[in-house]
Amino acid sequence: METKTMNIKVEKAKTSKIGQVDFNNLAFGNVFTDHMVVCNYKNGSWEVPEIVPYHPITLDPSAKIFHYGQSIFEGMKAYKDGNDDIWLFRPMDNCKRLNISAKRMAIPEIPEDYFMESLKALLKLEKDWIPQTPGSSLYIRPFIFASGNGFHASPADEYMFIIAFAPSGAYFSGKVKVLIEEKYSRSANGGVGFAKAGGNYAGQFYPTQLAVDKGYNQVIWTDDNTHEYIEEAGAMNIFVRINDTLLTAPTSDRILDGITRRSILKIAESEGIPVEERKIAVSELIKAAKDGSLKEMFGAGTAAVISPISTFGFRDVDYDLPETPNSYAALFKKCITDIQYNRAEDNFGWRLKV
Amino acid sequence: METKTMNIKVEKAKTSKIGQVDFNNLAFGNVFTDHMVVCNYKNGSWEVPEIVPYHPITLDPSAKIFHYGQSIFEGMKAYKDGNDDIWLFRPMDNCKRLNISAKRMAIPEIPEDYFMESLKALLKLEKDWIPQTPGSSLYIRPFIFASGNGFHASPADEYMFIIAFAPSGAYFSGKVKVLIEEKYSRSANGGVGFAKAGGNYAGQFYPTQLAVDKGYNQVIWTDDNTHEYIEEAGAMNIFVRINDTLLTAPTSDRILDGITRRSILKIAESEGIPVEERKIAVSELIKAAKDGSLKEMFGAGTAAVISPISTFGFRDVDYDLPETPNSYAALFKKCITDIQYNRAEDNFGWRLKV
Ligand SMILES: Cc1ncc(COP(=O)(O)O)c(C=O)c1O
Ligand SMILES: Cc1ncc(COP(=O)(O)O)c(C=O)c1O
Repeated sequence: METKTMNIKVEKAKTSKIGQVDFNNLAFGNVFTDHMVVCNYKNGSWEVPEIVPYHPITLDPSAKIFHYGQSIFEGMKAYKDGNDDIWLFRPMDNCKRLNISAKRMAIPEIPEDYFMESLKALLKLEKDWIPQTPGSSLYIRPFIFASGNGFHASPADEYMFIIAFAPSGAYFSGKVKVLIEEKYSRSANGGVGFAKAGGNYAGQFYPTQLAVDKGYNQVIWTDDNTHEYIEEAGAMNIFVRINDTLLTAPTSDRILDGITRRSILKIAESEGIPVEERKIAVSELIKAAKDGSLKEMFGAGTAAVISPISTFGFRDVDYDLPETPNSYAALFKKCITDIQYNRAEDNFGWRLKV
Repeated sequence: METKTMNIKVEKAKTSKIGQVDFNNLAFGNVFTDHMVVCNYKNGSWEVPEIVPYHPITLDPSAKIFHYGQSIFEGMKAYKDGNDDIWLFRPMDNCKRLNISAKRMAIPEIPEDYFMESLKALLKLEKDWIPQTPGSSLYIRPFIFASGNGFHASPADEYMFIIAFAPSGAYFSGKVKVLIEEKYSRSANGGVGFAKAGGNYAGQFYPTQLAVDKGYNQVIWTDDNTHEYIEEAGAMNIFVRINDTLLTAPTSDRILDGITRRSILKIAESEGIPVEERKIAVSELIKAAKDGSLKEMFGAGTAAVISPISTFGFRDVDYDLPETPNSYAALFKKCITDIQYNRAEDNFGWRLKV
């Protein structure tokens, strides 16, 4: 798609809510900034995005979002360095993935320049909202949903694209305890698991709640056919270290192709860490946990960054991960966040200055 | 749950839109009546439902429905007989299925009396909207969605339950041409296919559009593991007649347990028709189509009623169904609609007078 500079119309909020926010005590995703990007799809095309005050959305009760789950989203972050410069991490990857999700969900693709230019304009306007407290960042939520009306089960004729910002603290506090799930599944072969589609998340809530009730933080999904191989977690791809080899499941139409995952694979390559992208059997994990070759497990995702796993549960048995010196999780976390916060050279070309 | 008579508060619309509606030319689900039921879940419980004028819904951009697809629905119809009496067909089955869907999607279950009493009250108020043109009926859409806010991927703390009505004509016009799908899937083992969850429908739009582009009306889904067995269509369960035996796939966690399907199985039993609920291989269908033992195929669902299939496509070959005298589809359609419109004895106790 053609990329051009646009004039994004800005309607400023009359007052700012920023004074009411305690930036030292941010939870995840429950405080929103003063403005948002809104862009409507009508009569067969996307209108030019505008920046408007953050405000409620009004929809007919028959709007298809309420009935048929036609919605997709992205999750990104903006970072501020010591010079007050603003940085994004691989934003075009999010833009392209949003459009991959769009296609699978029969949602019209958003022009890349509409996405990028409106995002940058909103970031410039809201720059004071980007937290500088360590571990905090500005969480960015681009999303598209079906705003067109009607009870016929078919794609809507109107959509809304919105970008909203939430200054946020850590997604998880502390190490994560996960349960390997054998009964419920996240996605099907030939399904929509590779898309960041709304329904993929709602479907995880109930099984995750059952795991939380047993004392775990998250579920690790297995393939829906045999339940023998681990796939990914609710909002993170999963990495395993056996001896010195880093393992992760291959992407497929059931697994989200995570940008953090992709970055870790590149860093591992440049660090000379042996990597295997292949199916990981639960039985292999348990064997490795028992014989001591399982050194680390961690989740990787934009919201959770790198989240070390302390324990995994399987069939009512808990397996604790050891404390491993020179941890890969710590190495990747440092390397990625140093690039994100402009604390180190960016040899990969991932950082974008806003 | 306890059932009690409630006093449902009614706020009447100032004017009615009914004069603008051409009841002889109704499409499916794009005209809505003057009022709707609204019921909010807040602070851990469902408030008493109210009837209010049909009006737009206002939500924060962070409302979880926009992000995580936490939504479920039902599809029912109301029928009017020659005496202006109003009838529902197995409404408690819809109410119970809505709560089955609710549980799987981590949505709080709606009290059965809230559902039934508010539905009946709304039907009485909107009785003039129930079409009497043959083939038309009042389509009823109960639905629940996550109205609570926040970007954290976890269940919402607030929900809205709404019942809206749409006087509607036929869902399909004429016989249906279907494509048996081998690549894309509707649902996973251990997934949410048995729930009437929004995301199940959005996931079908793209593959269905590909089938429509090839000249078909609908997709018949196969199991996501082998793609060898037929499951159901987008909004219908599928029945096959081989010689005089009626076949349908068993329900599972991948298939919606349709109320029309359930009713057909009962009628078949009472008519002495041999029935087999078992896996149906695509190869078996093709063999039967070739040797002439495949007599009928039809879809069954509330919206589509009984929809005879004229042709099924598989791997670029079309197989035409023959014209079969004493068709089962015609028998079931007559039997079910005669009960629905109060034209015949209801030996099954399915009809409920409003
Ligand atoms: C299901 C799922 N897997 C993995 C990820 C990690 O992807 P990324 O690293 O691009 O954030 C996410 C979330 O972002 C996700 O929702
Ligand atoms: C996926 C699916 N299968 C089958 C059906 C048929 O179910 P019922 O007969 O209860 O309407 C429906 C719709 O209602 C449906 O959405």
